[in-house]
Amino acid sequence: MNKNTKVNAAILIIGNEILSGRTQDTNTSTIALWLNSIGVKVKEVRVIPDVESTIVYTVNKLRKSNDYVFTTGGIGPTHDDITAESISKAFGLNYEIHNKAFKILESYYKPGEFNEGRQKMVWMPKDAKLILNPTSGAPGFNIENVFCLPGVPSILKSMLGGLNNEIVGGEPILSSTISLRTVESEIADSLTNVQDKNKDVEIGSYPFFQAGKLGVSIVIRSEDQLKIDRCTSQILEFVNKKKIELVDR
Amino acid sequence: MNKNTKVNAAILIIGNEILSGRTQDTNTSTIALWLNSIGVKVKEVRVIPDVESTIVYTVNKLRKSNDYVFTTGGIGPTHDDITAESISKAFGLNYEIHNKAFKILESYYKPGEFNEGRQKMVWMPKDAKLILNPTSGAPGFNIENVFCLPGVPSILKSMLGGLNNEIVGGEPILSSTISLRTVESEIADSLTNVQDKNKDVEIGSYPFFQAGKLGVSIVIRSEDQLKIDRCTSQILEFVNKKKIELVDR
Repeated sequence: MNKNTKVNAAILIIGNEILSGRTQDTNTSTIALWLNSIGVKVKEVRVIPDVESTIVYTVNKLRKSNDYVFTTGGIGPTHDDITAESISKAFGLNYEIHNKAFKILESYYKPGEFNEGRQKMVWMPKDAKLILNPTSGAPGFNIENVFCLPGVPSILKSMLGGLNNEIVGGEPILSSTISLRTVESEIADSLTNVQDKNKDVEIGSYPFFQAGKLGVSIVIRSEDQLKIDRCTSQILEFVNKKKIELVDR
Repeated sequence: MNKNTKVNAAILIIGNEILSGRTQDTNTSTIALWLNSIGVKVKEVRVIPDVESTIVYTVNKLRKSNDYVFTTGGIGPTHDDITAESISKAFGLNYEIHNKAFKILESYYKPGEFNEGRQKMVWMPKDAKLILNPTSGAPGFNIENVFCLPGVPSILKSMLGGLNNEIVGGEPILSSTISLRTVESEIADSLTNVQDKNKDVEIGSYPFFQAGKLGVSIVIRSEDQLKIDRCTSQILEFVNKKKIELVDR
């Protein structure tokens, strides 16, 4: 893929525990930050329940409209872990024992501990490519442009490094943050002017409340450091003119 | 709606800062837990960028396949806040000044402070129903089954209580708000005592910043008005003892 091409991805969080609010998803942020660093922009995220027809439908939708899809959750050993079987159906592939995955887990567990429940984790879509798991053995898998990762944040995190050579990104997306002791309405007009003069740079404005004080973080994002620098100096110009205090965050 | 009918909702998180991984979304969990408590189940969550066509398309998709849709983000005063205009387009409604919202913010800010940036926050879809904001003044809004909330978690959280009677799910939950000119640390212990004595009542504490001053809104929620009244009098007891000023909000 050409470095100048914009490369995008979707993240698909699979799990009732996120939809019920019981568990706070943190994987989106982990995956998004990693993808940015290798030049892939996250275009959308969806959270869906552990329902086969929903997984099949959503995966097929997302894999056609994104360069990459990353799923999290549902690849463990219990009855509600249905991601691997659902992905098999989405691709029209057999759901079967993956020999290499079987060998990995067979040697990972002590003799006699690789029981039926654990063996469920080696059932995958036929000819899936494994995503190695340095934390807890059970691999994730990859079919075409879909990468299936576990839901447990620490395990997921440990698996991303192994994917760096599998994902072809564009230019890494750079960002710079300017934090100010002000409120958004004080800078809205000036910031609009800067955005209008720099249409291909993404400028976001985010209020914060820290140590009892209000502030605003302005985040500038682009693949081009020169464009970020130009925006930064235009922003600092109005910040100085308005005598707004800069804040370390 | 029949009490026995299953009621479902979608949550739509609007904001580049979530997709970039810079900000960890917590609103999904907040909204989901609240919806569960009033008998509404979250069927799906989507995170999309601040792009008008994407917002219009996604809102129209979700509002047709869910009883309720809750959006977060993009209703502030800066150039990247495009939710209200996009929702207007999704419903084919005029995007215009909302008179009641204008009056609320006009009296919320000190004379001369209701500037052009802040006035942007009273532009809404024609005839939108307001969602009151006990934390920072600027209301959210509701059109048909779509409810638009801010992205700042503490503000969003403080606005949900006011929606309990708008959503038909299970048993309705009642709420009452006491606003105080104080900081949370001043009342934390006393409030804990009240909560301990009223375990089946939900007592929330939300700091706010209004006309240059800090305050705390205490929101008491229960299905039982008598329980709310009992909590209210216990709270007013320590408020009087501590000589804390009550604030009209």
